[in-house]
Amino acid sequence: MHFADGASTKCLDVLPDQLPTCSDLNTSAFLRRAILAENPHLIVFTGDNIFGFDSSDSGRSLNAAFAPAIEAKLPWAVVLGNHDQEGTLSREGVMRHVVGMEGTLSEMNPTVVDVRDEIDGFGNYNLEVGGVEGSVFENKSVMNLYFLDSGDYSTVDSVSGYGWIKPSQQYWFQITSRQLQKAYKSKPQPQKESAPGLAFFHIPLPEYASFDSSNFTGVKQEAGISSASVNSGFFSAMLEAGDVKAVFTGHDHLNDFCGELTGINLCYGGGFGYHAYGKAGWARRARVVLATLEKTEKGEWGAVKSIRTWKRLDDEHLTTIDQQVLWIKKSTS
Amino acid sequence: MHFADGASTKCLDVLPDQLPTCSDLNTSAFLRRAILAENPHLIVFTGDNIFGFDSSDSGRSLNAAFAPAIEAKLPWAVVLGNHDQEGTLSREGVMRHVVGMEGTLSEMNPTVVDVRDEIDGFGNYNLEVGGVEGSVFENKSVMNLYFLDSGDYSTVDSVSGYGWIKPSQQYWFQITSRQLQKAYKSKPQPQKESAPGLAFFHIPLPEYASFDSSNFTGVKQEAGISSASVNSGFFSAMLEAGDVKAVFTGHDHLNDFCGELTGINLCYGGGFGYHAYGKAGWARRARVVLATLEKTEKGEWGAVKSIRTWKRLDDEHLTTIDQQVLWIKKSTS
Repeated sequence: MHFADGASTKCLDVLPDQLPTCSDLNTSAFLRRAILAENPHLIVFTGDNIFGFDSSDSGRSLNAAFAPAIEAKLPWAVVLGNHDQEGTLSREGVMRHVVGMEGTLSEMNPTVVDVRDEIDGFGNYNLEVGGVEGSVFENKSVMNLYFLDSGDYSTVDSVSGYGWIKPSQQYWFQITSRQLQKAYKSKPQPQKESAPGLAFFHIPLPEYASFDSSNFTGVKQEAGISSASVNSGFFSAMLEAGDVKAVFTGHDHLNDFCGELTGINLCYGGGFGYHAYGKAGWARRARVVLATLEKTEKGEWGAVKSIRTWKRLDDEHLTTIDQQVLWIKKSTS
Repeated sequence: MHFADGASTKCLDVLPDQLPTCSDLNTSAFLRRAILAENPHLIVFTGDNIFGFDSSDSGRSLNAAFAPAIEAKLPWAVVLGNHDQEGTLSREGVMRHVVGMEGTLSEMNPTVVDVRDEIDGFGNYNLEVGGVEGSVFENKSVMNLYFLDSGDYSTVDSVSGYGWIKPSQQYWFQITSRQLQKAYKSKPQPQKESAPGLAFFHIPLPEYASFDSSNFTGVKQEAGISSASVNSGFFSAMLEAGDVKAVFTGHDHLNDFCGELTGINLCYGGGFGYHAYGKAGWARRARVVLATLEKTEKGEWGAVKSIRTWKRLDDEHLTTIDQQVLWIKKSTS
């Protein structure tokens, strides 16, 4: 969202006739319209939620940025980008502010791991999506959401560029995934296949560079993929874990594609905020993800059977584009 | 070494006149000659110590392979390759056999980490090199050796090729490195710079492909670098840790180079064993690493001041080639 000071923060890269009246409030308006159009069960904000450099009070910017989610009484979750900490709050401070806000499911960091030292970053956590209440799946997590802090910038002197997901985070992710998969395959209602997982973080992985228009849906309009300049291995960590079917990142505003590599969909959310670089005349957008449940033999709601995605454009009709299937369950239980 | 059954196991890729009399015993003879020539303080075997497919008894092959080190009463350390487990012992079994042998400093796996689940692989451990006895460095580790199991083959269905170093291992490496650096910079004799670290494992990292003859010493004679087909991030994990100055791997018998990338030297040991693919007329070889100590202001032996390397060829004169400096201490303490 790149939110700063609200009405006084002007838009970037919009058409000349939009410029005079365009501000952060357009970002909020888009969020409200998207909520009304899609009626989501959860909103995930994939970082650079605020643009710290231009915010005179990070806490106030955060409050304003997420206000539409709170007003709609929807649960929401946040990961940090590389600009969130540039204002009056540190990365830890931003995340601490966020987790204290109304309606958020965001967490500072996991407490379940016996890690000797703390996990790197702020805002590494997971959410379980329970099956339908009253069904045999009500105490099972039928879909798992992983949120990670991909950092801001390299902390290694000899390496320039953006941050990356560290071994401590990957280790936490893998043991969490293993526990969730074990539980899903155990009684009651033991499942053969793992529940699908979705991962959310800000900075795209180097593997996002594996695609071109022949094997993705959407567009790649930037010169490259602005991943870290080293590969810290989180893609292979997800391959090993086996349950993550799609990854959603922010960071590159003019790339909005989604492509599949060895069973994992690598997707951009698409540029959403108005006080952020963009492309005049090319609509700001939001990605929607829909998981559909199957019915069991007894006619009850069961496991997730498919995950689909599309994007909504911030145009007059909130046009839906680029529908695609991310995952379909292989076997019936 | 690719050791199998000894005298009955013939050599591969040697000159026609060498073939009739060449066997695993030539590998042992080279090891004995190299020990006599260099008088090392430690021998590290970087995997594919035995060639399991052709071994009728893995334990016996291991005993024969390491016998020259034991006879010389030298300490020795082992990591696993991708062929060690192909005989009568599993990977765990090979490592368990090794750690029970005389004179070895090899360990099964670390016990110091509060890891909820066990670390991946077998033979992940570290060794501290103490300062000179009687000096103020006698209770400090002036150089740190990290040994990791880089696996054998991919365990992910959608990924083919060789194994890789997993997040659990990288996490262990990082917290171990952090503790060692903290201790080195603490009293007594607190140091400004971290003690240099060396890492040993079998399968080269994808970053080994970063070099050509313009920026390495040695040769690259294979079509490529036989790393895993995914990048699991151990190079960036070492960059983050900051203390590892050189990595030594096996695996590619015809590549023997050593090149520096953002402060870390990536080196091959060079093809050593005779029952292993090689190049007829191109001598089998071994890499030597020499760490030199500095003298303190009081004239005592102190920290490591430089690390150099060269290779010995298994020719008539055990020719020394490709001398190079891997690291020089920046500041005096």
